[in-house]
Amino acid sequence: MAPPTPRLLVPVDLTKKPWEQKFPLHNRWHPRIPPVAEVKTGELFRVEMSDWTGGAIKDDGSALDIKFLDLSTVHYLSGPIRVVDQDGVPAKPGDLLVVEILNLGPLPGDEWGFTAAFDRENGGGFLTDHFPCATKAIWYFEGIYAYSPHIPGVRFPGLTHPGLIGTAPSMELLNIWNERERELEENGLQNFKLPEVLHSRPLANLPTTKGCRLGKIEEGTPEWEKIAREAARTIPGRENGGNCDIKNLSRGSKIYLPVFIEGANLSTGDMHFSQGDGEIAFCGAIEMSGFLELKCDLIRGGMKEYLTPMGPTPLHVNPIFEIGPVEPRFSEWLVFEGISVDESGRQHYLDASVAYKRAVLNAIDYLSKFGYSKEQVYLLLSCCPCEGRISGIVDSPNACATLAIPTAIFDQDIRPKNKVPVGPRLVRKPDVLKCTYDGNLPVTRNPSALK
Amino acid sequence: MAPPTPRLLVPVDLTKKPWEQKFPLHNRWHPRIPPVAEVKTGELFRVEMSDWTGGAIKDDGSALDIKFLDLSTVHYLSGPIRVVDQDGVPAKPGDLLVVEILNLGPLPGDEWGFTAAFDRENGGGFLTDHFPCATKAIWYFEGIYAYSPHIPGVRFPGLTHPGLIGTAPSMELLNIWNERERELEENGLQNFKLPEVLHSRPLANLPTTKGCRLGKIEEGTPEWEKIAREAARTIPGRENGGNCDIKNLSRGSKIYLPVFIEGANLSTGDMHFSQGDGEIAFCGAIEMSGFLELKCDLIRGGMKEYLTPMGPTPLHVNPIFEIGPVEPRFSEWLVFEGISVDESGRQHYLDASVAYKRAVLNAIDYLSKFGYSKEQVYLLLSCCPCEGRISGIVDSPNACATLAIPTAIFDQDIRPKNKVPVGPRLVRKPDVLKCTYDGNLPVTRNPSALK
Amino acid sequence: MAPPTPRLLVPVDLTKKPWEQKFPLHNRWHPRIPPVAEVKTGELFRVEMSDWTGGAIKDDGSALDIKFLDLSTVHYLSGPIRVVDQDGVPAKPGDLLVVEILNLGPLPGDEWGFTAAFDRENGGGFLTDHFPCATKAIWYFEGIYAYSPHIPGVRFPGLTHPGLIGTAPSMELLNIWNERERELEENGLQNFKLPEVLHSRPLANLPTTKGCRLGKIEEGTPEWEKIAREAARTIPGRENGGNCDIKNLSRGSKIYLPVFIEGANLSTGDMHFSQGDGEIAFCGAIEMSGFLELKCDLIRGGMKEYLTPMGPTPLHVNPIFEIGPVEPRFSEWLVFEGISVDESGRQHYLDASVAYKRAVLNAIDYLSKFGYSKEQVYLLLSCCPCEGRISGIVDSPNACATLAIPTAIFDQDIRPKNKVPVGPRLVRKPDVLKCTYDGNLPVTRNPSALK
Amino acid sequence: MAPPTPRLLVPVDLTKKPWEQKFPLHNRWHPRIPPVAEVKTGELFRVEMSDWTGGAIKDDGSALDIKFLDLSTVHYLSGPIRVVDQDGVPAKPGDLLVVEILNLGPLPGDEWGFTAAFDRENGGGFLTDHFPCATKAIWYFEGIYAYSPHIPGVRFPGLTHPGLIGTAPSMELLNIWNERERELEENGLQNFKLPEVLHSRPLANLPTTKGCRLGKIEEGTPEWEKIAREAARTIPGRENGGNCDIKNLSRGSKIYLPVFIEGANLSTGDMHFSQGDGEIAFCGAIEMSGFLELKCDLIRGGMKEYLTPMGPTPLHVNPIFEIGPVEPRFSEWLVFEGISVDESGRQHYLDASVAYKRAVLNAIDYLSKFGYSKEQVYLLLSCCPCEGRISGIVDSPNACATLAIPTAIFDQDIRPKNKVPVGPRLVRKPDVLKCTYDGNLPVTRNPSALK
Repeated sequence: MAPPTPRLLVPVDLTKKPWEQKFPLHNRWHPRIPPVAEVKTGELFRVEMSDWTGGAIKDDGSALDIKFLDLSTVHYLSGPIRVVDQDGVPAKPGDLLVVEILNLGPLPGDEWGFTAAFDRENGGGFLTDHFPCATKAIWYFEGIYAYSPHIPGVRFPGLTHPGLIGTAPSMELLNIWNERERELEENGLQNFKLPEVLHSRPLANLPTTKGCRLGKIEEGTPEWEKIAREAARTIPGRENGGNCDIKNLSRGSKIYLPVFIEGANLSTGDMHFSQGDGEIAFCGAIEMSGFLELKCDLIRGGMKEYLTPMGPTPLHVNPIFEIGPVEPRFSEWLVFEGISVDESGRQHYLDASVAYKRAVLNAIDYLSKFGYSKEQVYLLLSCCPCEGRISGIVDSPNACATLAIPTAIFDQDIRPKNKVPVGPRLVRKPDVLKCTYDGNLPVTRNPSALK
Repeated sequence: MAPPTPRLLVPVDLTKKPWEQKFPLHNRWHPRIPPVAEVKTGELFRVEMSDWTGGAIKDDGSALDIKFLDLSTVHYLSGPIRVVDQDGVPAKPGDLLVVEILNLGPLPGDEWGFTAAFDRENGGGFLTDHFPCATKAIWYFEGIYAYSPHIPGVRFPGLTHPGLIGTAPSMELLNIWNERERELEENGLQNFKLPEVLHSRPLANLPTTKGCRLGKIEEGTPEWEKIAREAARTIPGRENGGNCDIKNLSRGSKIYLPVFIEGANLSTGDMHFSQGDGEIAFCGAIEMSGFLELKCDLIRGGMKEYLTPMGPTPLHVNPIFEIGPVEPRFSEWLVFEGISVDESGRQHYLDASVAYKRAVLNAIDYLSKFGYSKEQVYLLLSCCPCEGRISGIVDSPNACATLAIPTAIFDQDIRPKNKVPVGPRLVRKPDVLKCTYDGNLPVTRNPSALK
Repeated sequence: MAPPTPRLLVPVDLTKKPWEQKFPLHNRWHPRIPPVAEVKTGELFRVEMSDWTGGAIKDDGSALDIKFLDLSTVHYLSGPIRVVDQDGVPAKPGDLLVVEILNLGPLPGDEWGFTAAFDRENGGGFLTDHFPCATKAIWYFEGIYAYSPHIPGVRFPGLTHPGLIGTAPSMELLNIWNERERELEENGLQNFKLPEVLHSRPLANLPTTKGCRLGKIEEGTPEWEKIAREAARTIPGRENGGNCDIKNLSRGSKIYLPVFIEGANLSTGDMHFSQGDGEIAFCGAIEMSGFLELKCDLIRGGMKEYLTPMGPTPLHVNPIFEIGPVEPRFSEWLVFEGISVDESGRQHYLDASVAYKRAVLNAIDYLSKFGYSKEQVYLLLSCCPCEGRISGIVDSPNACATLAIPTAIFDQDIRPKNKVPVGPRLVRKPDVLKCTYDGNLPVTRNPSALK
Repeated sequence: MAPPTPRLLVPVDLTKKPWEQKFPLHNRWHPRIPPVAEVKTGELFRVEMSDWTGGAIKDDGSALDIKFLDLSTVHYLSGPIRVVDQDGVPAKPGDLLVVEILNLGPLPGDEWGFTAAFDRENGGGFLTDHFPCATKAIWYFEGIYAYSPHIPGVRFPGLTHPGLIGTAPSMELLNIWNERERELEENGLQNFKLPEVLHSRPLANLPTTKGCRLGKIEEGTPEWEKIAREAARTIPGRENGGNCDIKNLSRGSKIYLPVFIEGANLSTGDMHFSQGDGEIAFCGAIEMSGFLELKCDLIRGGMKEYLTPMGPTPLHVNPIFEIGPVEPRFSEWLVFEGISVDESGRQHYLDASVAYKRAVLNAIDYLSKFGYSKEQVYLLLSCCPCEGRISGIVDSPNACATLAIPTAIFDQDIRPKNKVPVGPRLVRKPDVLKCTYDGNLPVTRNPSALK
């Protein structure tokens, strides 16, 4: 019996551009992006992926590549992969595609990653009103551990996972996406209060031919033009899974994805060496190239059986996940809390996003007392294995969100001490790579901050 | 050397009403509610507490007590406790009060609790638009385990904690609370979109003399009248800690509370045998009477040192927590995801509350396939040790929230299976206790639901 | 429905002697020790227990009580408890008695314990040839935590458990015990090499009327005389469970005990606030009085079904255990190794006891570099939640045993550091309570020790 | 800055014999086996290793290769590796060599392993008197998981580790080893009782030129002859670490090894995909080829500082270990107990090896009730992540050892059930590969076994 070395189904050559790969990458969701490969259920296979920017971000001494990154080009995905059963019958709409993650990691020879926050005028991040500049930190991997020359004094084991995994949408589902997101983009500022508090722009990322890559479909052809105008961007997670950024989706996890088109057309990408819940800096995990070793199964008719839709159509479903048994083990956590009162003191109604923003701001201020710049902590909390919880969501008017940080990732004891230290604190040098902010959008300042 | 049996500082007699106790309970926050007891730092002491309703909810066969509960009377708290240092010098504004939870549990002889959702016209809960009726489930405790005659087939160890622990606000802080919450109550429906999605009413719970209890201050006196009109309700968590409902705040945890008035005036209550993140049903933990064994310490001047304010005044802070080392251990989790698209299919902008609502609805529908009524699952997910996470908060426009459920709490395997079972599923009987909904508010129906 | 407060089945009054209790304690195994109480399967009940010495050891400033303890009097057990099923039919030989531990802890008002090593001439301990003096340390409990005035700088959560739980033997089984242990006592020194390495004396503890307590059977009666001469001592664990000292047998655990006589006659005692694997100092856990909340079940005929005998008779079985889900969580462990070469350099053959002795000696020497006396570490490793493993048992001639110590129990970082500290180390004061050793047995000295 | 891809320091080509490798493997300990490579402290490097038999065992349908394996040829080790500091100064005797395991795994393309028990006349195993035949099971890896066609119904994540890692001994230490082991071999049967109970033969494995491989030293040269006659066999773990078989020594672990000769001369091998505590079948882990990614550090003079010798010379030390933070997580364990009474009913004195043998026999009998052959369970308990504990080592005369098995590795519920199943149990097919036992040594039969 031959040993089960995984078949290399989708290779990636990091010396080439995403569109020059043997199986060219794609960065949109559309049912007509053709599969690049096929697997049978039960087969062990390997997929390689570039980092989500397709190699645009470099291990250099500058954050300029972050500042000027063209967001219309991301995420570069590997696939689509067509899934068939043991008899060669393809996955069918209504099935559940079960994907088991058996192994994963960085690509050999490329053991590094980056964490970054975008410029406020170019996507920003969760706290972009506080931190409008583009910033970047590089991380190096030593086996299971990551450390950064830009954030000294921390080192932690990765809970490595794919940020993005999903099936192709049907045209019907694609249309639903495009309509609801266009509605938000057009009317969101008037109709929603949250955009006053969370300042990322644009509100949604609508289809655009700019930067569009469709795998095997050649750019400029009529087919390309048609699809590129319709194809959904990959930034948000949606009914098909996609960019769900679930940080615990590591080795041994299973994902139950709805199948919307024949063959399922599974795509993967956006590998994260590690991420904190929320991925707050946006380009906020330790972003890297990497590989996945997967095995697929099909539950025929499983959508109806296991995924009751919640919404106007039977397509309004979400995937289900099982978490694997191998995670880094931390025994001590320091927890920061936020309630849904914003930085101006304004009361919001059970708003977990506002509460979480507050919890994160509290943590940043706290940790900056231990010798870090606030930008260092912002990027750190975005990528270290911290947990973001919705602790209370019913105690009107305050949602209570918490951010739990494992204390073992620091080389100093960060817990409050009875004897308050006297004199200047240790200053951690160097700092993150940083650009100027040259835009016009207003910056939130903490009225209570010491000057 | 005498063994350190904790001093019983605040006893509670469950045969008496909250206001008849030796140290009468209070249900408001106000700096002038006088302390009932004093402790020195380093002293081991015990506080007993009624359940948050002061005994209004009974272990009987009806949910009528839930339907008609007067929310102006909750939460009944033990304390305030004045804290002084070893030299007898009281805690001072600006200090940090460190409270270590050394032990806790139900009151001996009262080993039971309840989980409930209120009527939609009387407070409701996170999903009150879907489940407008008052419902109730009783839980019995067998040591570390709880089981319910109303939700058969589940049994789990409690991660027991106080839902509410906090210091007294200063008048300045109290005024800030009352102003910002009044502003919300008066203008919230116009200014905020979230109230269209989360249907609990009222938007805030403003001060009211109705149902007000102020401990040693006699009802009806001029002092009582003045304080009762100002004193903040205890429903939401705020800068002083309070009802933060952090489910991991169990044995061995430490809480760093800001001190706003001399003596700190610590109050505790709302004991939970177990709670899920979010406490979604509102009266949603396994609510019980109980005891805390505590030890206090003071970090003089610690607020400035460790809690940088975030907001218009130096009082805009939040407590910090350390999680204890003794928690139930689960190795397998089934995870449900939600994105910020509501049940009508409408796209919201990075709204974690909407996303979490969707994740919970997905989980309820899923688990109801295993023989449970949706009301059973609603109450179960409110009180079992499930984790609610903010997984992605930057991928515009979709926030991604997840709800992870430990599979070991069920007596059947609830994971999706390749072989879909045929024929009628096991129906779990009996069901939760339930009242009719006699109000007029509209109910959300899932357009995709079968039937 | 009445809440399930456990019925207090066997109370203990700590102001009275073991034989003066309402249900007098016993300290022997014999089928004819009459039950003091009866329970039905499914019933929640509470058993109280004195510490294993019946209160002979005091919280005072001396180890004299340890030095002169009469070992013929231990362990004082509560019970026997007769178990019947829902129909009142008693447990029968051949059944399995399932005992679930639902809660446990120290007796209220008696929150302290002791750890001790006996004098070499009076029982000694695992390392009695190195540490021949009687020593004692007192521990105080603060909820889940224990700390000792005699071993400063450590504090840890208890993994509390009964050291001893078992059913009564039948006469046939009792005779097997007495014969095989007598054979060892009489011929062991000639026939076994291990007694040269492990120096506890006597080799076995045979029946004796001295110190014998038989519960309800009055001392001095003919029945007492007969039973006392036959009844097995309680020191070793045997086929009936008994003193197995399994440190993880805490809340939520289940024990499957063989039933040898009608009614099962369950006895419990020897409560441990915490114990390290091996309980090396002999009186080595944190010994305390305490309570158990239990529930029993019967698997009729279960011995044959689940416990295949291994030995000359069908009675040669051992119990099975399930470990509960609530244990203290440690993420960092320092591990010491030992191989089966003794302190004189002599090679032993795959001897796990010798290897473990070596691992413990290594750990003691190591930790004594951090300011502790070796006696402090000996007692500490006996009672803290350290793990003793048989890592390799096949690599002739060396067994490899390991001792893993959770680093979080210390208030200093005990891991090896690259920068070796210079100058005198911190000396931890005070020390354990200690007696002189006035005997004649030789003491093992480490030939390599610095003088 | 170049990313830290580990330097491939010692490659292995599995298509070649151990002695044909670019850096020929060695299978003995001797100070004069020359280093094959050199590393600086702080450098990230990769070592590849054949399986411990150097490829002698095949993934075929027969256990004959196990039956006739020449044990004089094992373990084949990679190295020695000379370690120098940043300034090029080599490790010196008396230093501590710190080795951090940053990553490890099977060699790509060789994702399989084997678990085996040797013939009783050829090494045997822990239970060779019960199972005298050579047996073998093949395991295949799917990422973190292993499964075996010969032991159906189990699948578990690997806690992968090197079974063997050590530094070269000095001549003085080597002489100590050879003397003490020769003494045992010559006089052990008379002087020790344990060989009556543990039946592996020979008692020790003394130096022999047969099968000896010394890396770069050519076979047959005078130097080879001299060294081969002196060089210690690698079977047992010793003062230099070596074959310690500590199953938790996985990713993120640190090992503090004593340095006995200049350069330290680190060797590694015997990679285990997974192992149970004790590795009872002898060839008992899931044996595989593999790689290690390592980083070294030196604590100058650290032996004196951290490793107090225990024995006649300063060389009588043992390494120290720190366990890494990434281990598979299991929440439910079934625990089997053994006491130091052997299968004939004979009482031994505090003998942990006998007690552990009994615990393992109990577990095998128990699990064989679930459709497995006893040989299947013997091999399974040897390689699955089960824990072997020394629970009690002081309760004369019985040592109490426990074997804890994570229940999640089985596809059926193996816990005892109240309703005993009726009728024939599921029989798991196929069985392990098995040879006849053609020797003369007596086999232990359980007198109580049915049939």
